[in-house]
Amino acid sequence: MKLRKKKAYSVAIMGATGAVGEEMLGILEQRQFPVSKLVLLASARSVGKKYAYGGREIEVRELKEDSFEGIDIVLASAGGSISKRYAPLAVQAGAIVIDNTSAFRMDPEVPLVVPEINPKDIKKNNGIIANPNCSTIIMLVPLWPLHRANKIKRVIVSTYQAASGAGAKAMQELEDQSRAVLAGQKAAPQVFPHQIAFNLFSHNSAIKDEGYNEEELKMIKETYKIFHTDKIKVTATTVRVPVYRAHSEAIYVEFAKEPDLAEVRRILESAPGVRIVDDREKNYFPMPIEASGKDDVLVGRIRRDPTSPKGLWLFVAGDQLRKGAALNAVQIAEILCGRTVPVRV
Amino acid sequence: MKLRKKKAYSVAIMGATGAVGEEMLGILEQRQFPVSKLVLLASARSVGKKYAYGGREIEVRELKEDSFEGIDIVLASAGGSISKRYAPLAVQAGAIVIDNTSAFRMDPEVPLVVPEINPKDIKKNNGIIANPNCSTIIMLVPLWPLHRANKIKRVIVSTYQAASGAGAKAMQELEDQSRAVLAGQKAAPQVFPHQIAFNLFSHNSAIKDEGYNEEELKMIKETYKIFHTDKIKVTATTVRVPVYRAHSEAIYVEFAKEPDLAEVRRILESAPGVRIVDDREKNYFPMPIEASGKDDVLVGRIRRDPTSPKGLWLFVAGDQLRKGAALNAVQIAEILCGRTVPVRV
Repeated sequence: MKLRKKKAYSVAIMGATGAVGEEMLGILEQRQFPVSKLVLLASARSVGKKYAYGGREIEVRELKEDSFEGIDIVLASAGGSISKRYAPLAVQAGAIVIDNTSAFRMDPEVPLVVPEINPKDIKKNNGIIANPNCSTIIMLVPLWPLHRANKIKRVIVSTYQAASGAGAKAMQELEDQSRAVLAGQKAAPQVFPHQIAFNLFSHNSAIKDEGYNEEELKMIKETYKIFHTDKIKVTATTVRVPVYRAHSEAIYVEFAKEPDLAEVRRILESAPGVRIVDDREKNYFPMPIEASGKDDVLVGRIRRDPTSPKGLWLFVAGDQLRKGAALNAVQIAEILCGRTVPVRV
Repeated sequence: MKLRKKKAYSVAIMGATGAVGEEMLGILEQRQFPVSKLVLLASARSVGKKYAYGGREIEVRELKEDSFEGIDIVLASAGGSISKRYAPLAVQAGAIVIDNTSAFRMDPEVPLVVPEINPKDIKKNNGIIANPNCSTIIMLVPLWPLHRANKIKRVIVSTYQAASGAGAKAMQELEDQSRAVLAGQKAAPQVFPHQIAFNLFSHNSAIKDEGYNEEELKMIKETYKIFHTDKIKVTATTVRVPVYRAHSEAIYVEFAKEPDLAEVRRILESAPGVRIVDDREKNYFPMPIEASGKDDVLVGRIRRDPTSPKGLWLFVAGDQLRKGAALNAVQIAEILCGRTVPVRV
């Protein structure tokens, strides 16, 4: 499906009161997305909540089956089961859905898109375009330009994932638990299965095939789909850390040929969506607090492996709510509209 | 050098008021180490500070050149430059020094010992025995029994290191900064180069050869020395996380032969100093808050790599102050005394 060319588009945000939904609203405004009408959809209990947008106030409406009449673009981030139910209805009503949940990502009929990597995949859609998993996006934005210059054969990644990946309530839990622990009280986990304050734990998604959790399987399978290859060996350990909203990842890459460090830096310097933060003398590298609120994925600790000539380490940090979710979705919407905004604003 | 066999030994703790020094005191008492006299040594500003030990109170004395007369065993953890200056004096005075700093670790005349791995190396000492780096110990305790059964060819490790590795002041900084951030104030880094509260950063040691920091080089070089081989390819990314006192590590291992998962579990179950925490159904794996205050290194996320038949992932957590430092040193002292206490108490 294509969007009919217009001066401005009616946009609905499904899950508008969530951490990603709120970020979508902010990014639409910040990037001056051509919006003719904005509809904020959420569950009944959020109805009446108001958000500022473009100098107006917009009230949240209840998500219903008939919410999509006259809507051109739906940005969906209300959970997988909500997307499964409502995305097809939105498409039936004539909208294109950019879905931030995992509901359709591995559906062969649905493109899975990172605008810096595979924007052309958007064309072959049946009304739904999937936004990849946050840790996948943050890993692949810097890896793609390197892969184009020197084929990546293998990725071994360990993640340091922020609370925001589990939503606004999880971020609040990190704050509340931290206060409790500092006051000498016990942390009482509710959103996460374990204490998040001053602790870390294996990612809180279900353990599946061969002991890998869903988050790890997403990083593996989505990489194949986005890069259009299953010739890369990808393996991952995903970990939740007491950080609010940016994911970090220690990525070990093996290339087909020995990487040249100067070339790697040159490629990353001109790569869209990437910023090098790599000052060895000052011991200054990517940090989640500095990636928070930023569009770029920060990349540093760029170094070869003396024991393995084709190996290369990177350490990256990217805002989970922005490039890992809301920004990537809005960028897809911009491509749908034929906007000529640069990927990096 | 050998310790002359006695019923009880005079022990000095050098750096007694530091995070590791205090832990050494507690562990000597807990393990009922045969102490005839205990001398607590620190810099002049700590003189007069008192610690309870075995129902008595012991006052801290100033570390001086003549502090070691009549001392059998020195447990040293007051920093590398202090050890370089005072350890030879202690040896001259007839003591054996178990040194927790990096001062002598790579000295070919000095054994570098993890009691579960290479206790026999203790014998060939010239009065100084080095305690390995904390992240090295925590990594190697579970890897050693696996290596004995199936040679390890390669280790790719990413760490999640606690504040305690930088001492008591760093732990206090994590607490103070967390309070400040929760109160809406700015964090003011003093001990660490960057904000530690709700953040993480590449390990705060100097960047050396080929972009590796000192912590990473310790993990690499100390592994060779402790395992008595340089045939293992070891590479590491070390990261500081907002956790108080236990280090975690995501360890990717490649063996000579395909590992058998049941055998790996069986080996780890009976390995000294190791406890398996690996409940896939409950999503329950090693966590730093559960490793804190414990002697064992917790090991979990034990799984193969479907893309690489010889690969295996482990996720470990170990108390940085205990097994990573003070406990390992006291265990070495126990071997010196010929104590027959089991390694696991």
